[in-house]
Amino acid sequence: MTTVKDIGEQGLLAKLQRFCPPEIIGDDAAVLVTAPDQSLVVTTDVLVDGVHFSNLTTSPEDAGWRAAAANLSDLAAMGAFPLGIAVGLGLPGDLSVNWVESLYQGMTECLQKYNTPIVGGDVVRSPVTTLAITAFGQVHPSQIIRRSAAVVGDAIVVTGVHGASHAGLQLLLHPELGQNLSDEQKTALIGAHQRPQPRLDVLPILEKIITSPMSIAGMDSSDGLADAVIQICRASSVGAVLEFREISLPTAFNNWLTPEQALQYALYGGEDFELVLCLPQKSASAFVKHLGEGAAIVGRITPGSTILLHDEQKKFPDQVLTLSQGFQHFKS
Amino acid sequence: MTTVKDIGEQGLLAKLQRFCPPEIIGDDAAVLVTAPDQSLVVTTDVLVDGVHFSNLTTSPEDAGWRAAAANLSDLAAMGAFPLGIAVGLGLPGDLSVNWVESLYQGMTECLQKYNTPIVGGDVVRSPVTTLAITAFGQVHPSQIIRRSAAVVGDAIVVTGVHGASHAGLQLLLHPELGQNLSDEQKTALIGAHQRPQPRLDVLPILEKIITSPMSIAGMDSSDGLADAVIQICRASSVGAVLEFREISLPTAFNNWLTPEQALQYALYGGEDFELVLCLPQKSASAFVKHLGEGAAIVGRITPGSTILLHDEQKKFPDQVLTLSQGFQHFKS
Repeated sequence: MTTVKDIGEQGLLAKLQRFCPPEIIGDDAAVLVTAPDQSLVVTTDVLVDGVHFSNLTTSPEDAGWRAAAANLSDLAAMGAFPLGIAVGLGLPGDLSVNWVESLYQGMTECLQKYNTPIVGGDVVRSPVTTLAITAFGQVHPSQIIRRSAAVVGDAIVVTGVHGASHAGLQLLLHPELGQNLSDEQKTALIGAHQRPQPRLDVLPILEKIITSPMSIAGMDSSDGLADAVIQICRASSVGAVLEFREISLPTAFNNWLTPEQALQYALYGGEDFELVLCLPQKSASAFVKHLGEGAAIVGRITPGSTILLHDEQKKFPDQVLTLSQGFQHFKS
Repeated sequence: MTTVKDIGEQGLLAKLQRFCPPEIIGDDAAVLVTAPDQSLVVTTDVLVDGVHFSNLTTSPEDAGWRAAAANLSDLAAMGAFPLGIAVGLGLPGDLSVNWVESLYQGMTECLQKYNTPIVGGDVVRSPVTTLAITAFGQVHPSQIIRRSAAVVGDAIVVTGVHGASHAGLQLLLHPELGQNLSDEQKTALIGAHQRPQPRLDVLPILEKIITSPMSIAGMDSSDGLADAVIQICRASSVGAVLEFREISLPTAFNNWLTPEQALQYALYGGEDFELVLCLPQKSASAFVKHLGEGAAIVGRITPGSTILLHDEQKKFPDQVLTLSQGFQHFKS
């Protein structure tokens, strides 16, 4: 096994340069062209071995894909198209060079779908493998999506199903689960966890639907659907009602989980990287029709500050959603 | 002592928000406005406790200042004015909150001089304190400074003295050194190490001098003057002659170091964060006159690929500069 120490920083950089466009290599910084009427959007994630990923449960390719996807999702959540990412790496000397190349392979596989280059970064020695990604994108100022822009009466739209990523993780951790699922269903759920798709494809559809200037509120559901709705409501000083039956779930859940379990996965599981958007009812209906499977209006923005989970069929009592519920279920 | 674990990630973020402009807080990403005719410039540094800084030799304020200064210097080296920095932090739970606030204090003290905001970032748990900074700036495409743009006949300009930072470090590590220096001289050298100044002030002067379009080559001297000249020559496929007597040194060196030692500090010491620029002789002379103390033409770009250190007074024989000499002197 060739280790990072064997080839040194310069040797490693030389190997990693094939993942970057050649024109950006070799100066103190990378130069990118932005469109003249756009704002710059910047987001950073730090991921640490043993805390955010682990060789025990995640291949380096998947760790790379997920890191890139999470950052692109943050850009999508602002309405921004990606320009590039910078990658900072802290690596132990005894790490295999193969591992690092596989990490980059996974990152570029995700980025290529969105024509996003790795525009440089830094590689240093560290006792613990650390990955710091900064993604930058651009958005026309009138099309920025903000958490604080929700208004009473807005429909709450999800761009796809929730709970799939958490279900996939459970299947990976406990292979004895999901006996009733077909192999295809298992593969799809595990894929949702290992290779989540940032919903940048939603932005051109949104642009087409929204013909007059309007503020759209939203964020991504990386920390769960409940967290997204709660954060938007807090930032906008509004409340919300979510309709139990409208929250779209993977069909595989029918053969596996109770309705209560399924709902917990969807609300608190996290890492689905869908967008949760608030916009006027009429635009929301048109928008959902143009989106793929799982897109739905799942509730509406209300006055006050309460976020209520409501069951139209009254089989389940109304429930007030709070962030601490998510921690109770999965985080402790 | 209040630790990071005591107040949690949310508590720490709340404390750190006072270092960021309020309008950029609370969304998935920060939004920045760029000027319409400018290119975006991006640079990343990762710094790890025990590798790049240490509580034993560096206060958290100085570590923060130096990290910010290094990134701003990379922007200056590209000819770019800073727009903001994103800060990714990995922190052990038992780290004191005071330490983190002091780090941010040092960063903002450096950034404030250049009206540069911290525009967000990420704070996560890590077994080792890790600081990942990504700085972005903007530059008019015609004013980008590149390593690869040096041409035969160009003058090589340094924007200030070299060797001061390394001398300051030596005084910190070995207080018995520099007996002949005055307290003011010691303070100045130590200050050069602890609080280096990125040379963003050079850019408006350069803009004023350069009235017709011309390519300017350059980089910063963060890894030493020799490294900067060698990197520029490599990227531009040219050679260079450096004049021994023209390399500007701190005057304090006269009372302390032999000429040979002083030269080693200047060539290989590093972390002076001056700019090393190559431009036509006439422009170079005018440019140097507008710069402060220590700015000088230290050599010229030649055909071939040899980088020669020449002593006009012939007291020292000609010497070919290579990167490995730097490693021999200080890095082993």
